[in-house]
Amino acid sequence: MTAKTHPALVGSLSMANPSVKLINFSPGPTSLPKAVEDEIAASFKKPGLTSLALSHRSPEFLKILDHTKASVRRVMDIPDDYEVLFTHGGGHGQFVAVPLNLCHDKSDIATYIVNGTWTERARDEALRYCSVHTIDGRDSLGGYTTFPELTEEKIDPKSKFVYLCSNETVNGIENHRLPKIPESRRKIPLVIDASSDITTKPIDWHGDCVGVLFACASKNIGHPGVTLTIVRRDLLGKAKASPLCPGVFNYTTNLEADNLWNTPATFNIEVIGYLMDWLEREGGVAENERRSIAKSRILYDVIDNSGGFYGTPVQDNAWRSRMNIPFDLKGGDEDLTDDFLIESWNEGMVGLRTLTPFGVGDYLRASLYNGITEDDAASLADFMQRFARKNSA
Amino acid sequence: MTAKTHPALVGSLSMANPSVKLINFSPGPTSLPKAVEDEIAASFKKPGLTSLALSHRSPEFLKILDHTKASVRRVMDIPDDYEVLFTHGGGHGQFVAVPLNLCHDKSDIATYIVNGTWTERARDEALRYCSVHTIDGRDSLGGYTTFPELTEEKIDPKSKFVYLCSNETVNGIENHRLPKIPESRRKIPLVIDASSDITTKPIDWHGDCVGVLFACASKNIGHPGVTLTIVRRDLLGKAKASPLCPGVFNYTTNLEADNLWNTPATFNIEVIGYLMDWLEREGGVAENERRSIAKSRILYDVIDNSGGFYGTPVQDNAWRSRMNIPFDLKGGDEDLTDDFLIESWNEGMVGLRTLTPFGVGDYLRASLYNGITEDDAASLADFMQRFARKNSA
Repeated sequence: MTAKTHPALVGSLSMANPSVKLINFSPGPTSLPKAVEDEIAASFKKPGLTSLALSHRSPEFLKILDHTKASVRRVMDIPDDYEVLFTHGGGHGQFVAVPLNLCHDKSDIATYIVNGTWTERARDEALRYCSVHTIDGRDSLGGYTTFPELTEEKIDPKSKFVYLCSNETVNGIENHRLPKIPESRRKIPLVIDASSDITTKPIDWHGDCVGVLFACASKNIGHPGVTLTIVRRDLLGKAKASPLCPGVFNYTTNLEADNLWNTPATFNIEVIGYLMDWLEREGGVAENERRSIAKSRILYDVIDNSGGFYGTPVQDNAWRSRMNIPFDLKGGDEDLTDDFLIESWNEGMVGLRTLTPFGVGDYLRASLYNGITEDDAASLADFMQRFARKNSA
Repeated sequence: MTAKTHPALVGSLSMANPSVKLINFSPGPTSLPKAVEDEIAASFKKPGLTSLALSHRSPEFLKILDHTKASVRRVMDIPDDYEVLFTHGGGHGQFVAVPLNLCHDKSDIATYIVNGTWTERARDEALRYCSVHTIDGRDSLGGYTTFPELTEEKIDPKSKFVYLCSNETVNGIENHRLPKIPESRRKIPLVIDASSDITTKPIDWHGDCVGVLFACASKNIGHPGVTLTIVRRDLLGKAKASPLCPGVFNYTTNLEADNLWNTPATFNIEVIGYLMDWLEREGGVAENERRSIAKSRILYDVIDNSGGFYGTPVQDNAWRSRMNIPFDLKGGDEDLTDDFLIESWNEGMVGLRTLTPFGVGDYLRASLYNGITEDDAASLADFMQRFARKNSA
């Protein structure tokens, strides 16, 4: 019996022995790539002011803002008719901003594809501001393990937008490509919460009818306090937004002020720039997708080849997340899970269980964002194999 | 005639010669005290994860959150029946959160004291969500140079709150103590935007009927991306808030989740903790008020004793801001102003003119937040005297 006070069991991310190399599998906020973390640390050693101290209206910060915007555009291959905004309030801010910008009043209809924790919450927020049609993504057992089929009749033709989350972080369900909306509904813009998979696969902006794509920074592209929001220009316009839309969430207001309507999170924006530059140097989204596939495959292979020692809730490879891999041990054996957490933690592998209120069964979860290398994923795979061998008596 | 492309004239905050000591008079974001900036830099050299990489649910971050909250409480002497929240969306977020939390619907009345740029904007945002009664603070010339007298008849007794900004950053108008609400209206809670004067004077929480006090971090207590919001507990309650209140702005929702309803700006919260610890070591709010008085007096003295060479819009000492000192040269002489900016910039004094859309005449502005020492203010005063002597032919 293990003591429940062990640091590994309460989600500690630090080692008693600082010489152990940490690998941070947290679902976000989490570690950025080593090169990016080094660049941030170096920025605090340069002469002059750090970006923490820069007025948002100074030429020094405007250069950072322009640089980050240009890098985001290049790395994500964003067409000219989309605008790049750095917004406030995290993903939850966008849960509200989306309906308030795209629906004028409560009679306007929006279609929400609900297949996990975050689309549930986004839909619940939208209910205050528009008429929501839900496409229910629950499987036959009432759980979220898949993405629903999209048929013409499921999508109200009067919808102002169709909303989805391209990777459900908690549930481990991902659209490896954005879904194809039935031909007769393809004039309706798609709104995508890409908080946990942004930059890990290409976006076909026009081909997939993307209207808005947003991502809180704190998983793949930075740290919490800023959200990257990309909006197709024809959806903008103050008259289109709800009169209830707060200025801080109004896309048009913020775009007209070039992201300076209120003080943006200056340092957080600088960090997104570092991350995008790193991605570009490393080969961009295409290479990043290859890595994401490789990192996740090595772990799913261990799970699938463990003879039932490890389990994962999503069975269909088509929907398995490359970003967040939930797994359990012997169907959720508590003592074994505690041993697993303690032993992996002793080897520096942290963040496999965070104390969220969104627990899906007893699953642990390995998150494989941009801060996790292929070697890091291989280290976890190796540990999982060793642990299974030792405990498969 | 000076070239308008000179760095000093476009608000540059960096020196060609990095050995010149910078003094950052920006109105925010701006420099923090040197000791705090050093502590931030040191945090990037420690072994283990920086707070940028910490899951908001990890024990390591929860310790930071608890520490910052406790420091804020001690330094600001916050009574037990007030809650401390770290909110999203800057001051502008609170312009919306306040009416949406304290007014249930559009029929609820709120009284706004409007005497500058930020109370105008806060009032305009509130108009979407409640019935606003404005107490107009304009002077006889139509400008903002004072704080209006508060009489019983000006405050609707049905007001859900009375709103004010205790320091109007752009206009340079400050309440050195919170105003006394007439006895018959003292059950109405006061809501205070303290973004630019927080920690620089004591708050008599119960005596002044404070309901909500908020401050964006980026002037006196940190950097942009988080807002400190302090709410009296009896004002909380989901049923009291408007059904239109977004979760991200709902005080009760966020309090019930202990600031973790959505991912808070982890690193930004850590920095507020450093700042509060520094304040405590330096003697707290009482000593900080003494410094603020000293820093501002030395500059107002130069202005008042310049024989009209320098001017400032607020004449009445009772309302002169200790935080932001607007001033002009010979009634706004453009060439002279350019020379002043270039020469002071060459001596490392930056941020005296930022390219805001809120220009009040041709005033420059010296902001004297916690990052500015008495010596820094004395350096500017000395420069201003030298410049005036040289140019008072």
